Amino acid sequence: MNAPATDIPGYRYGDPLLAPSPLTPAALAELEASLLFGPDDVAALKRAGTIVADRIEAILDVWYGFVASQPHLLAAFREHGTGEPIGAYLTAVRRRFGQWILDTCNASHDAAWLAWQEEIGRRHHRSGKNRTDGVNASPYVPLRHLLALVMPISLTMRPFLAEKGAAPAEVDAMHAAWTKAVLLQAILWARPYVTEGEF
Amino acid sequence: MNAPATDIPGYRYGDPLLAPSPLTPAALAELEASLLFGPDDVAALKRAGTIVADRIEAILDVWYGFVASQPHLLAAFREHGTGEPIGAYLTAVRRRFGQWILDTCNASHDAAWLAWQEEIGRRHHRSGKNRTDGVNASPYVPLRHLLALVMPISLTMRPFLAEKGAAPAEVDAMHAAWTKAVLLQAILWARPYVTEGEF
Repeated sequence: MNAPATDIPGYRYGDPLLAPSPLTPAALAELEASLLFGPDDVAALKRAGTIVADRIEAILDVWYGFVASQPHLLAAFREHGTGEPIGAYLTAVRRRFGQWILDTCNASHDAAWLAWQEEIGRRHHRSGKNRTDGVNASPYVPLRHLLALVMPISLTMRPFLAEKGAAPAEVDAMHAAWTKAVLLQAILWARPYVTEGEF
Repeated sequence: MNAPATDIPGYRYGDPLLAPSPLTPAALAELEASLLFGPDDVAALKRAGTIVADRIEAILDVWYGFVASQPHLLAAFREHGTGEPIGAYLTAVRRRFGQWILDTCNASHDAAWLAWQEEIGRRHHRSGKNRTDGVNASPYVPLRHLLALVMPISLTMRPFLAEKGAAPAEVDAMHAAWTKAVLLQAILWARPYVTEGEF
């Protein structure tokens, strides 16, 4: 486990009180094999983490700008009823999202990490959205929108990975590892949405 | 609609008897916006289609080799009970899979295409797997395995796109467009797996 110590409200990676994921380590290993995710990707992600560590706010600016430009995405952050974007909710999620970038680069894919992925899934799903931040926003993020975000979160990372002079082949390797790790997590977040037994 | 005329058994893109997709054109446009999929990608995919058109069998060899190497993926093609891989099923799917490569490059994202995506989703899901080919294989492909295949289907395409001398920037553009189009389809295929109202 590589869960960092932080004071970020609602951040629970490494919290032993989190419910365990129903996914077994063997099932996770199958998923990693499907994704062609291996030790080289773990190493490339660690390099990526050192490259982007001081650029987290700039990356979040890109992502938040994108979400704000897409009404169907910003909808997740709007007050139920009035439709006003909830600034405090956007801000609270942003702190966790920034830490998530570093965690994606540094996390061990173990039981503590799987439990945290399950919790992140719930926080997008009807069973857990809004609770962490005590807001009354839209009741869930539709799964199709959650899965589609893999693509902008992949593509927009590449320029940041290339910013500090890494060779093109190394940028390629870091970018592929990043994309695999993001898709892996989006898949894990889909679990609460799926009919029992079909995930 | 760009559905081709083929004699491939079980291929139904363009069949007016297919049930329509419940996804509206507006919902599809939102997904494309989330994926950063636009007119440049349509053009890049068309170029990709001309590049790979005579390499379909070589691409399928790579993909089938990968599936055969992963027991959790080959499981989809095994006879229920005996566990023997069903050769005729693998062969029938392969012909449609080859056509799917070309369709991914050339299809218009319209109602006929959406209906065909919905049908492809059903054919992986419990509600429709095995029927097209009249086999008694595993009853469904778990959604996590279906979604994870986006990554090898993305990564393994890149060398084929680079094979005929396109400039690196053009290969990048074709590869990004291909990946967006594959993820889009995998998302659409997820619909039958998802709890009503949460897709």
